[in-house]
Amino acid sequence: MNDFLLLDRVRVVLVRTSHPGNIGAAARAMKTMGLARLWLVSPASFPDPVAEARASGAGDVLAGAKVVDTLPEALDGTVFTAALTARRRDVSLPRLGPRAAAAEIVEWRARGEVALVFGNEASGLTNEELGLCALPVTIPANPDYASLNLGAAVQLMCYELRMAAMGEGACHAAAECMPEPATHDEIEDFFAHLASAIVASGFLDPAKPRRLMPKLRRLFGRARLEKGEVAILRGILASFGIDGNK
Amino acid sequence: MNDFLLLDRVRVVLVRTSHPGNIGAAARAMKTMGLARLWLVSPASFPDPVAEARASGAGDVLAGAKVVDTLPEALDGTVFTAALTARRRDVSLPRLGPRAAAAEIVEWRARGEVALVFGNEASGLTNEELGLCALPVTIPANPDYASLNLGAAVQLMCYELRMAAMGEGACHAAAECMPEPATHDEIEDFFAHLASAIVASGFLDPAKPRRLMPKLRRLFGRARLEKGEVAILRGILASFGIDGNK
Repeated sequence: MNDFLLLDRVRVVLVRTSHPGNIGAAARAMKTMGLARLWLVSPASFPDPVAEARASGAGDVLAGAKVVDTLPEALDGTVFTAALTARRRDVSLPRLGPRAAAAEIVEWRARGEVALVFGNEASGLTNEELGLCALPVTIPANPDYASLNLGAAVQLMCYELRMAAMGEGACHAAAECMPEPATHDEIEDFFAHLASAIVASGFLDPAKPRRLMPKLRRLFGRARLEKGEVAILRGILASFGIDGNK
Repeated sequence: MNDFLLLDRVRVVLVRTSHPGNIGAAARAMKTMGLARLWLVSPASFPDPVAEARASGAGDVLAGAKVVDTLPEALDGTVFTAALTARRRDVSLPRLGPRAAAAEIVEWRARGEVALVFGNEASGLTNEELGLCALPVTIPANPDYASLNLGAAVQLMCYELRMAAMGEGACHAAAECMPEPATHDEIEDFFAHLASAIVASGFLDPAKPRRLMPKLRRLFGRARLEKGEVAILRGILASFGIDGNK
């Protein structure tokens, strides 16, 4: 799936997860963003039917999960490791937010496997575990309530990884599936038709134009009219009994 | 909380949510990002202890939730509405991803209340409901498995809103000098007027509507109509001899 994004080189490592539902939610979150490699360090309960239920259609990610006893085992063979951390530590670490971290992670994953590590729901990672990770990442949450659910934090990071991996490609794809825009001439013909219609109806007095046409140009200009829309608008004007000049 | 970000002007509207756990997860996700205003349209079960449990420390968001019967009630008084949608529709909508959508939403929230709408877990929003929303938003998920959990989708959008609100600054001045936007009600009255006008003119056959009104909604939705523009458009319709119902 989405091999061109190379997101199969990103391991999501969940450390000492207490609630199996969160493991399932993480699997689902990963799959929605094209990640597949889940590592579990000493989970409280795995496999577990609660995890299966929460994973929904991402049972394959759960089935492929690797369970190990310690974080170093989960990091074996990686070239780069980032770790989520909410707490302030006595050694003040340089932290990145999710977006900047994702940009760095996807750069590294072009060179080998990378890991993104999430600690226990309540206690996070130990200082020793955090010391094994090159990049601490902190989600810029509400200072009055920064307690993201584990599955939600995995969703957010995997989304940022996907966005970073897609880069500008996403915008291109979206633009390509948009309908055909109207040409300049078609739009000008529509405005001429509109002007003659509202002059004929008495709404626009050519002697006192009140900047009406510039205002209407501004409105339809913002909409970036499509070819089919110009046809509809001109059909509406024609239905009111004015065929237009062209 | 975080009043300077003005995220208390953003309503999160959950439509026909099936699982109360997702309502709780949404409340928690909102609060972690500094949002507080939750609206529930015909939830299957609310209040519900499962929602309370999943909300964790965000019980205050649940307690303040407003429950209404229909989407229009939840949108009353807003100046802008964005809606999450995964499905392809026959009218191909211009879609934004979460980041671009968040940038637009935070700009609008400087001018009034805005709504971010999420449909039912399985069936999403109806076409009619989607037609009430100016901006369709699609999360660029894995095409092989795009099924984000509702709470995860809320987390992701609220995160992007917070990032956009934190990152702006220079945009405030621009928003303030922009003309006053039309309200949801004014826009709906315009569409009702337009529909009755083109039925009267014979352009729209109610027996064979050909998706004309959805197409027109999409066009004018992209334009983000201003108050003065709605007045001009309704004046034009009236000049063709149809006063409209309202």
